[in-house]
Amino acid sequence: MADEKLDIVFTAPHPDDLEIGMGGAIAKMVKLGHRVGMIHMTNGEPTPRGTPETRMKEMHAAAEILGVQVVEMLGITNRELMDGPPARYKVATALRKYRPRIVVGMFGRTPGASPDHYQAQLITEASRFYSQLTKWNDRFDETEPFRIDHLIYRPVRIAAEIHHFHSMFVVDITDTIDQKLEAIGCYRSQFDNERLKWLEHHVRSSAGAEGGTTGVMYGETYALPRPLGVTDMVSLLGDWPVPPPFPPDNPPK
Amino acid sequence: MADEKLDIVFTAPHPDDLEIGMGGAIAKMVKLGHRVGMIHMTNGEPTPRGTPETRMKEMHAAAEILGVQVVEMLGITNRELMDGPPARYKVATALRKYRPRIVVGMFGRTPGASPDHYQAQLITEASRFYSQLTKWNDRFDETEPFRIDHLIYRPVRIAAEIHHFHSMFVVDITDTIDQKLEAIGCYRSQFDNERLKWLEHHVRSSAGAEGGTTGVMYGETYALPRPLGVTDMVSLLGDWPVPPPFPPDNPPK
Amino acid sequence: MADEKLDIVFTAPHPDDLEIGMGGAIAKMVKLGHRVGMIHMTNGEPTPRGTPETRMKEMHAAAEILGVQVVEMLGITNRELMDGPPARYKVATALRKYRPRIVVGMFGRTPGASPDHYQAQLITEASRFYSQLTKWNDRFDETEPFRIDHLIYRPVRIAAEIHHFHSMFVVDITDTIDQKLEAIGCYRSQFDNERLKWLEHHVRSSAGAEGGTTGVMYGETYALPRPLGVTDMVSLLGDWPVPPPFPPDNPPK
Amino acid sequence: MADEKLDIVFTAPHPDDLEIGMGGAIAKMVKLGHRVGMIHMTNGEPTPRGTPETRMKEMHAAAEILGVQVVEMLGITNRELMDGPPARYKVATALRKYRPRIVVGMFGRTPGASPDHYQAQLITEASRFYSQLTKWNDRFDETEPFRIDHLIYRPVRIAAEIHHFHSMFVVDITDTIDQKLEAIGCYRSQFDNERLKWLEHHVRSSAGAEGGTTGVMYGETYALPRPLGVTDMVSLLGDWPVPPPFPPDNPPK
Amino acid sequence: MADEKLDIVFTAPHPDDLEIGMGGAIAKMVKLGHRVGMIHMTNGEPTPRGTPETRMKEMHAAAEILGVQVVEMLGITNRELMDGPPARYKVATALRKYRPRIVVGMFGRTPGASPDHYQAQLITEASRFYSQLTKWNDRFDETEPFRIDHLIYRPVRIAAEIHHFHSMFVVDITDTIDQKLEAIGCYRSQFDNERLKWLEHHVRSSAGAEGGTTGVMYGETYALPRPLGVTDMVSLLGDWPVPPPFPPDNPPK
Amino acid sequence: MADEKLDIVFTAPHPDDLEIGMGGAIAKMVKLGHRVGMIHMTNGEPTPRGTPETRMKEMHAAAEILGVQVVEMLGITNRELMDGPPARYKVATALRKYRPRIVVGMFGRTPGASPDHYQAQLITEASRFYSQLTKWNDRFDETEPFRIDHLIYRPVRIAAEIHHFHSMFVVDITDTIDQKLEAIGCYRSQFDNERLKWLEHHVRSSAGAEGGTTGVMYGETYALPRPLGVTDMVSLLGDWPVPPPFPPDNPPK
Repeated sequence: MADEKLDIVFTAPHPDDLEIGMGGAIAKMVKLGHRVGMIHMTNGEPTPRGTPETRMKEMHAAAEILGVQVVEMLGITNRELMDGPPARYKVATALRKYRPRIVVGMFGRTPGASPDHYQAQLITEASRFYSQLTKWNDRFDETEPFRIDHLIYRPVRIAAEIHHFHSMFVVDITDTIDQKLEAIGCYRSQFDNERLKWLEHHVRSSAGAEGGTTGVMYGETYALPRPLGVTDMVSLLGDWPVPPPFPPDNPPK
Repeated sequence: MADEKLDIVFTAPHPDDLEIGMGGAIAKMVKLGHRVGMIHMTNGEPTPRGTPETRMKEMHAAAEILGVQVVEMLGITNRELMDGPPARYKVATALRKYRPRIVVGMFGRTPGASPDHYQAQLITEASRFYSQLTKWNDRFDETEPFRIDHLIYRPVRIAAEIHHFHSMFVVDITDTIDQKLEAIGCYRSQFDNERLKWLEHHVRSSAGAEGGTTGVMYGETYALPRPLGVTDMVSLLGDWPVPPPFPPDNPPK
Repeated sequence: MADEKLDIVFTAPHPDDLEIGMGGAIAKMVKLGHRVGMIHMTNGEPTPRGTPETRMKEMHAAAEILGVQVVEMLGITNRELMDGPPARYKVATALRKYRPRIVVGMFGRTPGASPDHYQAQLITEASRFYSQLTKWNDRFDETEPFRIDHLIYRPVRIAAEIHHFHSMFVVDITDTIDQKLEAIGCYRSQFDNERLKWLEHHVRSSAGAEGGTTGVMYGETYALPRPLGVTDMVSLLGDWPVPPPFPPDNPPK
Repeated sequence: MADEKLDIVFTAPHPDDLEIGMGGAIAKMVKLGHRVGMIHMTNGEPTPRGTPETRMKEMHAAAEILGVQVVEMLGITNRELMDGPPARYKVATALRKYRPRIVVGMFGRTPGASPDHYQAQLITEASRFYSQLTKWNDRFDETEPFRIDHLIYRPVRIAAEIHHFHSMFVVDITDTIDQKLEAIGCYRSQFDNERLKWLEHHVRSSAGAEGGTTGVMYGETYALPRPLGVTDMVSLLGDWPVPPPFPPDNPPK
Repeated sequence: MADEKLDIVFTAPHPDDLEIGMGGAIAKMVKLGHRVGMIHMTNGEPTPRGTPETRMKEMHAAAEILGVQVVEMLGITNRELMDGPPARYKVATALRKYRPRIVVGMFGRTPGASPDHYQAQLITEASRFYSQLTKWNDRFDETEPFRIDHLIYRPVRIAAEIHHFHSMFVVDITDTIDQKLEAIGCYRSQFDNERLKWLEHHVRSSAGAEGGTTGVMYGETYALPRPLGVTDMVSLLGDWPVPPPFPPDNPPK
Repeated sequence: MADEKLDIVFTAPHPDDLEIGMGGAIAKMVKLGHRVGMIHMTNGEPTPRGTPETRMKEMHAAAEILGVQVVEMLGITNRELMDGPPARYKVATALRKYRPRIVVGMFGRTPGASPDHYQAQLITEASRFYSQLTKWNDRFDETEPFRIDHLIYRPVRIAAEIHHFHSMFVVDITDTIDQKLEAIGCYRSQFDNERLKWLEHHVRSSAGAEGGTTGVMYGETYALPRPLGVTDMVSLLGDWPVPPPFPPDNPPK
């Protein structure tokens, strides 16, 4: 299975969460040549217009558009996701199988939406730890322990409270936002035409606003559970453009 | 001058700050029938491509598009705005002249942009107090004291730090965002075609993202320096739509 | 059961939590003509001087004083309330039965008091989502799915940490604080004379301090998990008095 | 002047600020045997019904009720207080004269009230530093340099933003709140009967709410610009009562 | 068992957590004459190089070095600690047995490390409440109810988010840091020479930095879930040294 | 003067502030091959044991040890630094002369120390803007306008309040901490042997604690006034070590 080793794995509870929340960065990491995986904890069903079979097809179509090496649905029960050893075993088994350097998960309670989102955060945090545990291989389908170096959060836009992170950064998704929207569009069982139009408006607006904080057209904001470690503070800022409201040709002329 | 009494006055240091930051709500308040004023503290010049005369014409053209009752430029020196009695006298004199129930000002330090923004915040806060002072009419062009009931902040998008307000609210500007963009477009001395295109992208994105937090297409976020006082918590939420990611026809059907 | 439809439902774990925390707003909403429900998740027993029978009588007496249309005790086990599908089913069933536009719940961990308070927050958040789920009616006593538009928090005064909300507002309870205290006084099994006197002092003080932030005699503070959506920022502030330290006749005269 | 050495000095811009904000702790510190000073930066005039002479009499009457060793008004111009060397010289000269171990000042911007409050905070912070400066005695009326060990803040109740302090503590003023109210009552030029009644309601409510967070009847909240240093974490909590909602005889009995 | 009554109990999930996080304050409280207990919820095993037997020996050796009256391991399953009645019963039974005035626990989610840390926080908070419950003695090994006056948090250094506490304080551990390091050194199954050297560097650095905020050589930071209650704000600050960057003999000379 | 162009400029009010606060990163940036400047706004005198001449010699000696290309003292009056046009002109002139891509300044009010620190923050923020202004060359010694792409803050350790930044990062100074301490040691007029020993303890402790948050031996924490812009979130985290408490060879083996 050594050939399945991934660089970065994204986790979320329901097929379509990753596409809506992190689709731009997923496609971008693929485009940069990294080996990327998408882990959906549940099949996201039942929903008013979906079926398990349809949803899986949509999930695979979206993953194909994003270009990831691996997409997996873990089969935990939707709507009843709860942090605890059983769910952690399943997620950690996947992490031990794919051995990524980085795992990225959702962050925040979403009281207008599913409680699964917050539980997925807790499960991802715990599973990252479980993935390195020794003398417990039998609980993880005999996979070997593996230390995942970094956890990255994607703070959800509809979080109930204002949280403070040590460090936030915005990934430039200007050249992948169309892929992101195309991937979202695969979920026809969830979004009819009217809803898709609404969603596209809000996805583009959010990406535009988030990108704007760092001077690019479209971005997605992520956060670290610690300050970022840096060797060179000059190269850290690279050739990054000066953020608005100052476009590149602004004063002084 | 009693006929000049306004309902709400918006303040900012440079012509174009109000249009970019609060143009949607300004037009909306006019459309709702309120008497609205725009106070620019300085003429915003010199700039690379502007002149004082051009800037004033642009300011008046923008005010006309937004439909406000009053626009005034106070003639304080641009780039050197500093909180203190002299600047407060000028702003408070305008407030005592127009006697609004509410004053709205920018909030936040903007280290990538002009230091005038933060000074304007301090000046607006202080001038609201100065406007009610008795036995000092000679310092305010013999205007009478007037108590302004409320201060509202427009937190700037590029604030250096994360601030916490007691209460934030989003004004629905869906039906005035085009007016806002048209008003911004008046400032040709500041924004050439390329820059205007960039600015429109970011204004639309921000308004879309801010509106999205409360379920409307476009919005502008404001904040109160205290909790909001409420009689009826049911009518407070009115017929407000359920915010995304749940469009109106969402589950369950 | 269509006639049981309520406008607003308040939830808490133990009979007396709602009265102490939200009694003023409950009575106020009734007085304004809204149809109001109180949901107690457990019977709150055992306690040193209470019995299940006494506690239920006290609960009904308090509800009568507050004037609510519905009071219900869900029979979950006191002291062991834990967020998860079983508790969510019970609360969501009640919500689907009463179909309120707004649900109001406690917010915050209370390490000096019962862990049930925080679990009730999580359960209320999740149950709001469960109430709209389709294809699951059998788990909710065959009630139909229903979308609840808004969630409101009542932050507990003894929260362990300082939290940040998008928007806080204070309901004027000046004309219902006596009703609130009378409702609290129904719980004789919980509060003897000395304790009741102490409690009254602290309830009045808190309500006075919270009301003071918005210029009324007595208030209760609530919070929204998002910014408030607003059409008219002038009417939002209505005829609200100027907050202290400026009583209405203050300078300038 | 060595005999004038004080233990603790309280500063504020206008006569009546200290009484309203910190009168309980001032009287309490006196009662505990400490030598206490009150420094008013300005005379607080003009006001609608006050005169400089009346205000000074009121100030002295209030100081007498609180029992402080020293009360001083520095004669800086009211309404135009600005942080900077001139104001700092005046405040620091007083601090060098009284050589207190602790200085206590207001904290926070108060946009509904005077801008002097925030400037007084900045001046107090800076003057604490100025008081220790050597080779500059000529700027401080030839007083000797003196290091003030500690600065304590009194966060104002009407602060525009939510601030975070390293450490907050509540001084029990249960046995001095009546003195506090009596001292406030000395300012008849500022508060007529109706206003005084309103003010008493809010002072009692706030003190009750603040005291309630630590289990006493009345308290005033203060903050430190650093974490508190502690030798014994058991004695730190002393015989402090368990805070509400648990009165001393609460469960279990 | 009345003679086992303790003044202060420290709780954590795994043997070595308390030593690394709170060892300085534990030794300090013992040195000051308080009766101190250490409660480890699990045995911390399996680990790569440890065994249950070795870990228990190490735990006892560390407790002996710190000099505590009581050390107890509750036998809950490591790696799967979850807040809920079963774990709360075990911890509360210990608290009811030792009847401390204060309980101190870890605070914060640690996504780079074990999820047990956060669960231990929740369990400690809940167990403090459970310890006072009447009519439930059979669930606590027939121990009598007992009210614990205070909860203190030790915020973990690697917390995922930035939290805000009402009050933080730093315990001076200058004269016990060597004991702390010696106690940590007992855990040879966890830390080989290289790791121990690394750990000592970071423990000394953290203690130096935390002590530095209050002017001592080494300290540990703790937090309260409420503001501290204080009678005398002068004696609160005691003879505490002026914090750096001002060493005792600093200006003015 | 084109050959004087620098990559990064560090600013602070008094000679020794930069060395104590940012000496590690300054030396590191030099070592990495960047062209670095140090701007001291004042000469830091008078102090108890210093003279202007001695202080300048110390400043140059420290700069030589750190290896910077440029060190400059602007001659603004110590102890009376105030944000405003005059100070901004001086700092901006230096920035326009050296045209760095990045400017780094202190952040935070330091009420136990000099008010100059906070004023220097405001001045640096404003001067960054002034440096790009056109049509004003006469105010800047005829230097040409220049846009500085980025501002970085060094939050001061003794800040009065807790602030929140969009993004924090820690520069690894493991191989330059000795240089930093040597540079501090140049200021013999400020630090005698005892004081230097104390300072070294605290500088090492802080650097150890800050480095520890990102897994290196010694670090300095910096902050950005916006989220960091990132192209590749995998390479962002580079080969950064896993932070403590997990040294590289930790479990699993």
